[in-house]
Amino acid sequence: MGVGIFDSGIGGLTVFKEIAREFPKADIYYLGDTARVPYGSKSKETIIRYSIEAANYLRGFSIDALIIACNTASSYALDILKEKMDIPVIGVVEPGVEMALKYTKNNKVGVIGTTATIRSNSYKRLLQEKGIQVYQKPCPLFVPLVEEGITEGKIAEMIVKEYLDDLVKEGIDTLILGCTHYPLLKETIKKLYPDINIVDSSQAITQFLHKEEINLQGNGIREIFITDKTESFEKFKKLLVGDIPLKKIELSQLCSL
Amino acid sequence: MGVGIFDSGIGGLTVFKEIAREFPKADIYYLGDTARVPYGSKSKETIIRYSIEAANYLRGFSIDALIIACNTASSYALDILKEKMDIPVIGVVEPGVEMALKYTKNNKVGVIGTTATIRSNSYKRLLQEKGIQVYQKPCPLFVPLVEEGITEGKIAEMIVKEYLDDLVKEGIDTLILGCTHYPLLKETIKKLYPDINIVDSSQAITQFLHKEEINLQGNGIREIFITDKTESFEKFKKLLVGDIPLKKIELSQLCSL
Repeated sequence: MGVGIFDSGIGGLTVFKEIAREFPKADIYYLGDTARVPYGSKSKETIIRYSIEAANYLRGFSIDALIIACNTASSYALDILKEKMDIPVIGVVEPGVEMALKYTKNNKVGVIGTTATIRSNSYKRLLQEKGIQVYQKPCPLFVPLVEEGITEGKIAEMIVKEYLDDLVKEGIDTLILGCTHYPLLKETIKKLYPDINIVDSSQAITQFLHKEEINLQGNGIREIFITDKTESFEKFKKLLVGDIPLKKIELSQLCSL
Repeated sequence: MGVGIFDSGIGGLTVFKEIAREFPKADIYYLGDTARVPYGSKSKETIIRYSIEAANYLRGFSIDALIIACNTASSYALDILKEKMDIPVIGVVEPGVEMALKYTKNNKVGVIGTTATIRSNSYKRLLQEKGIQVYQKPCPLFVPLVEEGITEGKIAEMIVKEYLDDLVKEGIDTLILGCTHYPLLKETIKKLYPDINIVDSSQAITQFLHKEEINLQGNGIREIFITDKTESFEKFKKLLVGDIPLKKIELSQLCSL
């Protein structure tokens, strides 16, 4: 059984890595739209259009489920993709919410993500339905920090504090990292706020697959496609998934769909 | 006489603003490729392709010159655009270098820009031909800082120091801001390093137009096109050029060229 994973860039490789570890036999096809990354600062309309193109591309492989690893795309395009696709489509929002519900004791949950993800209120809506008080904040500097490799030290801590102090003052006991890049800042966040439970999309999604009894099988195929290739993508990829090659595809293969 | 200005996003509005002030009668057509911004982290091949598409779009208007306001696009696509276009094409690199040559007394010049601009060595090559010692540094956190509106205060100063202290220690007396976003950090840079001469692309380009005796005339038409529209683009635009509306065009109008 094959699975497609789609992300705006290569942050979703945190999800790829967890799924590959939990389901070693699964065939995994990943697409990172690195020629148009980031989605988080773009409009709803553009995010939906890019997401449909990417989903259609992955559907060309033998996959039985599609995971939208990008929080921004999950927040805006999930319902439309569920409608359009003939296979199950799973986003990161619902799994993240379920994990947060397990963790929280005081029903106060913080959500951080890109500007677009926070603006969508996707996490907030689901959490509020369960009676949770939600405190949200967009953290637009986190993605560039992570891509710069500044995940610890004085600057990282200062920026993390700038964004998170307010949420922590509200008394949250659980924080959802609503962006696939943010798990790389987890150690710094834990150091500054050791009492807060942290929900990481990549772990949330594997727990969700287990709960739904989706058991990914196959021949252990691992394919990573990207729409643009640079050294920094290569470095970031290596850090997360080692030697699996990045295969570049032309943007026109998406554009023309 | 009309002029086209092209940038990967809306940072190039710093150039738009200076040209509009220096040449109030010029017809100015601006295109910001906000659906695919930023270019600075993408590959040479992708940057060239996007730049050709944008130049072709602007050529559809009555323009007699094309300005590549984006440092990244100027660094990679200028020669190709000069070849392909039937009107003069002006980048930001040469004007920036000329202004730096006027300023420097000790022939030690610093250059900062996006990862792609610095990797291209476009400024370095031209400066070295004139016997200048060049110290370069990519500053990938500056664009997100500016777009976040964090242009002064503790965090801005810390990040500016993180990137610039090394260059200043080398003894540079002049610093080229090789990215259209960076002029918005100019006050913070001046505060930290008051003795350094700062070269800002938007001023460099108007000086260059005067020197080349390119006198832009027309009916004062002002058009700003973007490929994606969000609130933050709107805010940033308002800050720079006030009430001129942002007109959204479809990416397919570029893609199909």
